[in-house]
Amino acid sequence: MRSNQRPDQMKLGAFFHPTGHHVAAWMHPGSQIDAGTNFQHYVKLAQTAERGKFDLMFLADSLAVRDASREALSRWPQYAVYFEPLTLLSAIAAVTEHLGLVATASTSYSAPYNVARAYASLDHISGGRAGWNVVTSGGAAAAANFGRVDYAHDERYGRAVEFAEVVLGLWDSWDDDAFVRDRASGRYFDPDKVHTLGHEGEFFSVRGPLNAARPPQGHPVLFQAGGSPPGRELAARLCEAVFTPLHTLDAAQSFYQDVKSRMARFGRTPDQLKIMPGLNPVVGRTTREAQEKHEYLQSLIHPDVGFEVLSNALGGYDLSGCDPDGPLPAELDTMHTEGGQTQFKNVLGWARNENLTIRQLYERFAGARGQRTVIGTGAQIADEMQAWFEAYGVDGFLIQPPYLPDGLDEFVAEVIPVLQERGLFRTEYEGKTLRDNLGLARPASRYAAQAEA
Amino acid sequence: MRSNQRPDQMKLGAFFHPTGHHVAAWMHPGSQIDAGTNFQHYVKLAQTAERGKFDLMFLADSLAVRDASREALSRWPQYAVYFEPLTLLSAIAAVTEHLGLVATASTSYSAPYNVARAYASLDHISGGRAGWNVVTSGGAAAAANFGRVDYAHDERYGRAVEFAEVVLGLWDSWDDDAFVRDRASGRYFDPDKVHTLGHEGEFFSVRGPLNAARPPQGHPVLFQAGGSPPGRELAARLCEAVFTPLHTLDAAQSFYQDVKSRMARFGRTPDQLKIMPGLNPVVGRTTREAQEKHEYLQSLIHPDVGFEVLSNALGGYDLSGCDPDGPLPAELDTMHTEGGQTQFKNVLGWARNENLTIRQLYERFAGARGQRTVIGTGAQIADEMQAWFEAYGVDGFLIQPPYLPDGLDEFVAEVIPVLQERGLFRTEYEGKTLRDNLGLARPASRYAAQAEA
Repeated sequence: MRSNQRPDQMKLGAFFHPTGHHVAAWMHPGSQIDAGTNFQHYVKLAQTAERGKFDLMFLADSLAVRDASREALSRWPQYAVYFEPLTLLSAIAAVTEHLGLVATASTSYSAPYNVARAYASLDHISGGRAGWNVVTSGGAAAAANFGRVDYAHDERYGRAVEFAEVVLGLWDSWDDDAFVRDRASGRYFDPDKVHTLGHEGEFFSVRGPLNAARPPQGHPVLFQAGGSPPGRELAARLCEAVFTPLHTLDAAQSFYQDVKSRMARFGRTPDQLKIMPGLNPVVGRTTREAQEKHEYLQSLIHPDVGFEVLSNALGGYDLSGCDPDGPLPAELDTMHTEGGQTQFKNVLGWARNENLTIRQLYERFAGARGQRTVIGTGAQIADEMQAWFEAYGVDGFLIQPPYLPDGLDEFVAEVIPVLQERGLFRTEYEGKTLRDNLGLARPASRYAAQAEA
Repeated sequence: MRSNQRPDQMKLGAFFHPTGHHVAAWMHPGSQIDAGTNFQHYVKLAQTAERGKFDLMFLADSLAVRDASREALSRWPQYAVYFEPLTLLSAIAAVTEHLGLVATASTSYSAPYNVARAYASLDHISGGRAGWNVVTSGGAAAAANFGRVDYAHDERYGRAVEFAEVVLGLWDSWDDDAFVRDRASGRYFDPDKVHTLGHEGEFFSVRGPLNAARPPQGHPVLFQAGGSPPGRELAARLCEAVFTPLHTLDAAQSFYQDVKSRMARFGRTPDQLKIMPGLNPVVGRTTREAQEKHEYLQSLIHPDVGFEVLSNALGGYDLSGCDPDGPLPAELDTMHTEGGQTQFKNVLGWARNENLTIRQLYERFAGARGQRTVIGTGAQIADEMQAWFEAYGVDGFLIQPPYLPDGLDEFVAEVIPVLQERGLFRTEYEGKTLRDNLGLARPASRYAAQAEA
């Protein structure tokens, strides 16, 4: 069945925006309308994902209600109110067995010690299924909730790298075999197997040790989104999965090559990082049904929302007053944006290369919000996924159903079985931990590595 | 059966130190030796507490591995490695139905926006069972993990008050009826029912609104430990349950009167705060068996641990070189301590009033760690609890079993049924939320209150 065999299988994450990925998801009858406060909604999603043998579920995050007009905000409530990711995933850990649990936490407005603890705790609670999506938080709205002004882009990334290194160091505070727990001698642990990090850096000073045992996975798995040059560097240096938006196979292959080739400089091999871009599947029993589903979703987008989404993707550029049926203003071509550079360039590229109006652009963008939409039957979507995977454009995908829970049910019913039949995706979990399933080795402690050297 | 009827029943929390409350708990065969990394241990504890109709389970916290000698630390691992409280309680929420979930979070090394979100999230996940134990973190060890030097005592409390007020304000960001979720009009919420806090204070600047819907309880229940004057003020002003150590009925009655009488100044009534000091029960089928159990536990205390515990209770005063069979050094009588003033005075008081040696003192203190130990049969322990409750020394207790899980099993088997028979404790949960069970009203939003005024 497979023309161009890769030795491995693809990896799949399920990215759960509360009511679904599409900006008009909550308007769709296939979405759980109170998703942001409905815990059982997430229990159902997680259990469906586990039935579908997904590697993991993934939660995005934001540290503010976004700045938007009353109209746009109240019509597009996606990240207005919802669960805090770590508390939600801990609760999900208790009602799942295999599913990886990847939560976003920002390096901009939290302390490395707190983040290291929380993810170590989630990894212990879940028996080794935790992952950390490392993000930097841009934007004035988040900054204002933490008593400061926004960071500059480079400072955010510098902070992120140091933050992540501190967290990795803290996870190694206790050797894997530190705990002897010997009642006879009255000794609970071997004091030679505790390590004080003593980090003194540009942004952080953190002594340690962490008050948590080394996580079951050694380190929870590190995810990262950004496709900008500092984002690629961070990924190549420290991360184990990347999900930057990729829209053409050429671009995916080029990104894949670029990020993986950067890894050698950090002493890493290409298999230590999985490229898993977002994929927004619109699944029908026929091509026509899928197309109609997509058109129906698009028809639910309120123009106020479309303008806002597009403006956000353009670094907050104010489009109000523009003609929706005209082109993007020319001055955007010479502008520079501090945050979200990848999105900015993607949107501007589409507008100019395909000569799109603002309305055409926001319809395209508002549906998938910067990620790739694939519309078709289960077999057609599987074809697309297979082509990208076998051509080494990706190692897998982060599936972002347009509406939830129905969009996930459809994917699990229609696409997963095709991938499994073709030998492209697992039919049973490989192991107990997220690392086992992703095919990532358990990292040795930095102290164990030193002792061996 | 009851001589001196109070109109209400006592409230009971279960305070779960990992292996148990006693410093030598892990040495006891009735404790789960790997408690700090064993999630199923906590599942079992929570389900036992729920079977016993406890109002809540309670978790302490610390933001550092304590500074101690290698010997003492490796022999007393209690808070060396363990679960982060919020992640643990979220997971417990998924496997319990009635039990309140009270987690400690510090106002010293986290941001109000993050704390407000996490507890709002836990309250939504658990259907209204969250509580926040507001603590200030003292000590150089925690400070060093967050890149700063320790706070002064007064600054810690000033920060705590402002922190808690910001959190309360953020929880009111969205009115209870803000979410119309109307697909017909395309309106998810009423934009007039979102509030921007706009807090600008001495320690914090937080804009809001919070990106979480108003918690099911309005506000998760606020707990507080400290018995010092600023701690009492904080409790009277903002808190709904207090568990400062109380060792005699006289002291309890005096504390009860003092804290409750402070509340009027803040426009609050005495029933809005529950006094629930710690109680460390050693339960036997006979008095003799209980006494023997206690002696056995005390015999498990290693002298290195005894010295350390006592030194910690004395503000870090270095006892090394002191004769364990002599008195505490005289200079302690004229010393002042920045943190933990209540403990310091309690220990010094015992030493002088009862003329105790260092060894006698640490044996007493190391067992209960500053809280009250009651040793006896189920009926005898119930007698003590009844006497204090009916004399308005307390509204209830935070039960701290000396070893876990067995110490909790014993309490639920031997003490709870006696309290229930006497009509002093519930046989069924009163309601769905922690507030319902504690008899605390659901607070109106500050904005609703304004609108009515």
